Amino acid sequence: MSQYILKIDCSDQKGLIYKISDLIYQNNLNIEKNSEFVDEESGKFFFRARIAGNLDIEEIKEGLQVLLPQDAHIYLGVRRAKNVVLMATKESHCLGDILLKNHSGELNANIQAVVSNHDSLRSLVEKFDIPYFYVSAQNLEREAHEEKVLTLLNEFNPDFIVLAKYMRILTPNFVKPYNGKIINIHHSFLPAFIGANPYKQAHKRGVKIIGATAHFVNNDLDEGPIIAQDVIHINHEMSWKDMQRAGRNVEKVVLSNAIDLAFEDRIFVNNNKTIIF
Amino acid sequence: MSQYILKIDCSDQKGLIYKISDLIYQNNLNIEKNSEFVDEESGKFFFRARIAGNLDIEEIKEGLQVLLPQDAHIYLGVRRAKNVVLMATKESHCLGDILLKNHSGELNANIQAVVSNHDSLRSLVEKFDIPYFYVSAQNLEREAHEEKVLTLLNEFNPDFIVLAKYMRILTPNFVKPYNGKIINIHHSFLPAFIGANPYKQAHKRGVKIIGATAHFVNNDLDEGPIIAQDVIHINHEMSWKDMQRAGRNVEKVVLSNAIDLAFEDRIFVNNNKTIIF
Amino acid sequence: MSQYILKIDCSDQKGLIYKISDLIYQNNLNIEKNSEFVDEESGKFFFRARIAGNLDIEEIKEGLQVLLPQDAHIYLGVRRAKNVVLMATKESHCLGDILLKNHSGELNANIQAVVSNHDSLRSLVEKFDIPYFYVSAQNLEREAHEEKVLTLLNEFNPDFIVLAKYMRILTPNFVKPYNGKIINIHHSFLPAFIGANPYKQAHKRGVKIIGATAHFVNNDLDEGPIIAQDVIHINHEMSWKDMQRAGRNVEKVVLSNAIDLAFEDRIFVNNNKTIIF
Amino acid sequence: MSQYILKIDCSDQKGLIYKISDLIYQNNLNIEKNSEFVDEESGKFFFRARIAGNLDIEEIKEGLQVLLPQDAHIYLGVRRAKNVVLMATKESHCLGDILLKNHSGELNANIQAVVSNHDSLRSLVEKFDIPYFYVSAQNLEREAHEEKVLTLLNEFNPDFIVLAKYMRILTPNFVKPYNGKIINIHHSFLPAFIGANPYKQAHKRGVKIIGATAHFVNNDLDEGPIIAQDVIHINHEMSWKDMQRAGRNVEKVVLSNAIDLAFEDRIFVNNNKTIIF
Repeated sequence: MSQYILKIDCSDQKGLIYKISDLIYQNNLNIEKNSEFVDEESGKFFFRARIAGNLDIEEIKEGLQVLLPQDAHIYLGVRRAKNVVLMATKESHCLGDILLKNHSGELNANIQAVVSNHDSLRSLVEKFDIPYFYVSAQNLEREAHEEKVLTLLNEFNPDFIVLAKYMRILTPNFVKPYNGKIINIHHSFLPAFIGANPYKQAHKRGVKIIGATAHFVNNDLDEGPIIAQDVIHINHEMSWKDMQRAGRNVEKVVLSNAIDLAFEDRIFVNNNKTIIF
Repeated sequence: MSQYILKIDCSDQKGLIYKISDLIYQNNLNIEKNSEFVDEESGKFFFRARIAGNLDIEEIKEGLQVLLPQDAHIYLGVRRAKNVVLMATKESHCLGDILLKNHSGELNANIQAVVSNHDSLRSLVEKFDIPYFYVSAQNLEREAHEEKVLTLLNEFNPDFIVLAKYMRILTPNFVKPYNGKIINIHHSFLPAFIGANPYKQAHKRGVKIIGATAHFVNNDLDEGPIIAQDVIHINHEMSWKDMQRAGRNVEKVVLSNAIDLAFEDRIFVNNNKTIIF
Repeated sequence: MSQYILKIDCSDQKGLIYKISDLIYQNNLNIEKNSEFVDEESGKFFFRARIAGNLDIEEIKEGLQVLLPQDAHIYLGVRRAKNVVLMATKESHCLGDILLKNHSGELNANIQAVVSNHDSLRSLVEKFDIPYFYVSAQNLEREAHEEKVLTLLNEFNPDFIVLAKYMRILTPNFVKPYNGKIINIHHSFLPAFIGANPYKQAHKRGVKIIGATAHFVNNDLDEGPIIAQDVIHINHEMSWKDMQRAGRNVEKVVLSNAIDLAFEDRIFVNNNKTIIF
Repeated sequence: MSQYILKIDCSDQKGLIYKISDLIYQNNLNIEKNSEFVDEESGKFFFRARIAGNLDIEEIKEGLQVLLPQDAHIYLGVRRAKNVVLMATKESHCLGDILLKNHSGELNANIQAVVSNHDSLRSLVEKFDIPYFYVSAQNLEREAHEEKVLTLLNEFNPDFIVLAKYMRILTPNFVKPYNGKIINIHHSFLPAFIGANPYKQAHKRGVKIIGATAHFVNNDLDEGPIIAQDVIHINHEMSWKDMQRAGRNVEKVVLSNAIDLAFEDRIFVNNNKTIIF
């Protein structure tokens, strides 16, 4: 007996839960856990279930397609560890945290590779026997560099790309083939302090909290759907470097929480927002 | 068309959601929102739905009773403001916060009365045109005092009794007729600092956080099912009186959140824990 | 024997603490508590002490002026309850919270009046026997309305003006005479969601935290020195009205904390930031 | 020119700051940063300063000894990276976090060794080229095992011993020679859930927050002076294993914050509490 994840989103109408649970019941499957949400603004219905039993994925999907509104998106797949490529630049705290969790068996993922535009994290990554690919951006146009990275990524065909402090802006050309699959950690409580050096910006503005935001990457810098956020309190004694140091703990925890949610298929994107079950 | 709240708990079995949603669908009702949870430890199923439509409460309940396991508890009622009696002693912050919310129309409740073992909060309460009953405990055995309070409460037959810093311990005799209906705010993050003067205890222990806990009252002091908790960070400069002062903000917010949940029928009690939808 | 508050800021140099503590010691005064901070960026020294003893304010200030750098600002005053005018528009949660704290003797202030551009909070305010002044803005230019409010304020000559959800933008003409004395609560974690209806903005952006910011008012909307900030976690189920409702608890606590700090003379403004002892 | 840390605690009396700052000023030294606190309950004065200049440690200490009350404890030392031995059992999250911070140069310490009662963390530790000592407790009385560990520790003579999830109870015999130098992370918000398996206890009690506490180890289990604490919110869906998993993020951050404070000599112990500058 296997476990499956079923995710549905469609326009809302009366009886959707009845129809879905009817089909699952008639197929002698067991819903171990389910969540649903209707977004009244967009009139959309979101449903996620963890199902146990023996099933034919295509058959169930076809059955659901008949019952549900025409605009339904249906995902049904075996519950499994996701394939993931990590990308980073020079800072090691987020990357190292993920590598450690992976090493101790806590990460529900298969880390295929680490890709970086610098070579400085190689020694850390290779300690954990993960392939490290250094793709220098020197003397390359942004598009040319991205092409090289994309070629590499395509070999791995990852379920998710995690930007664990990858400090280069991605072009729409890069994002497009991995839409909804690239997760970034930004070192501020967005939408505050978009762009470069948020800790310096935060220090300059004199805020009393700093934070971090994990989000899906879309075509607009730091504007993608937010998955997780958290903050810590700071005080006037802290320089921007102190903030950066303290903020790293928040960054790695927020990113860790976000990728756990993603790897368990617990996130829906609704326009520019996330629904998280 | 009215709104109803349906709450069900019963032993878990396959197809419960199908059976419930089937009955609701066949009666041409609309589930506006629903949540369910299976507690694997106790093997119990919990379900709450907000339903819109025209229905006969007894008929639906009987229909569900037939479909569901024999141990099912089914609550179905019109969504309405709850009747509430507040009890307090001398401190005004929690009581005043509730009175203010009620005054501004933010509280989904009808405050029937305030009952106190002191007369000192009368002027505050009467500003808001709420009846104030002073039931002195002087020269009375605990049981005799409770009898007087119970007699008064029974006249109001409240849905909930909110202990907004009522500083007397309640006996099982008092609790029994209002089991699951009495909500207390305790000024510590339980189970730390049970009993008298938790801020003094916290100061003595040198903790770096203090907090508050809202819980249902049962027969064991500060041991009832927890509804909501929160904390704030403190430091060595704070005396226990400073902690008390800072803690009041947490107390009133935690109690406010807990009663909102209770007044919306969003809480189940499972053994000594709460499930909150 | 009285208590005094001494606040000094000046350019930093070696021996400042020695010089200050020497003078205090020679005058047979006792420093009950003191804090200092050197901002390395601006090269400025900040010092605050609570002093007990019998002293001649002018004499001590003159003594300090001789010892300290020429750019020193020296404040020395008896520790006393501040005179405060509250301003509000229609929402009662922040105003009511302050009135309640004042009623229970927890506020270190003397509330002189409440001024509003609407009449709707009169009944609440008058319950607490505080004078209520309704200064309608109808059919008035912004400047003309502000003139009427200023005339009223000048009669009271308050130490602080607290904008407890006063929803009108203030012009430089209004701010100037009360520079560093006007405290506002903004319903977002600034600098996110400046301007109108931050909860709607937050809902639209799909953030996972919302918050509040208390700050001194200067000439730029929502850009003044930040005194206190806090946030709460939210989720996709919340409409912007749910956020507003939950956010009110944060707003009132953040404002309450900020005015406590101000009323105890614990805040310095350094360029556009605050230093808080 | 070097940096020094000066820490003083003694019974409070008038003029202490004057006397200390006078001596420092007369020696042509510069106080870069200082903090002081008087605990009114115990009547004790605490002072910490970061001093820059050229000084003779013994001379300054003697000078201070003459000026200060007889019960004064004076610490004066060059600001330097501390020597640290880490101890752990089987869980890697706290240990790994410290090793990562050390690897990236963020830890103000020299990690001399990792000591464990199991061999399972060896591969992780050796990745980072830190000596790993496996001291099995099998077939040994507690005292005999501790003797073997103590002999090892004494070779290193560490400034601090960090128990990064070392799951054995220490006897007074072990604690005594390292009094005030052993820092432990406990996986609950103490004093709640003292002893074994706090996450199971928390799950059973049905709390809505879980947390972690870093504290100095003394002779009473989980009763030592608390350095840092933090919590996260949880809900009814979480099993105790989910809590454990989520709690690990809190544990490692709280421990990280506590050791940063210790390694910078920012902690005083006052009876069973800490004062943190």
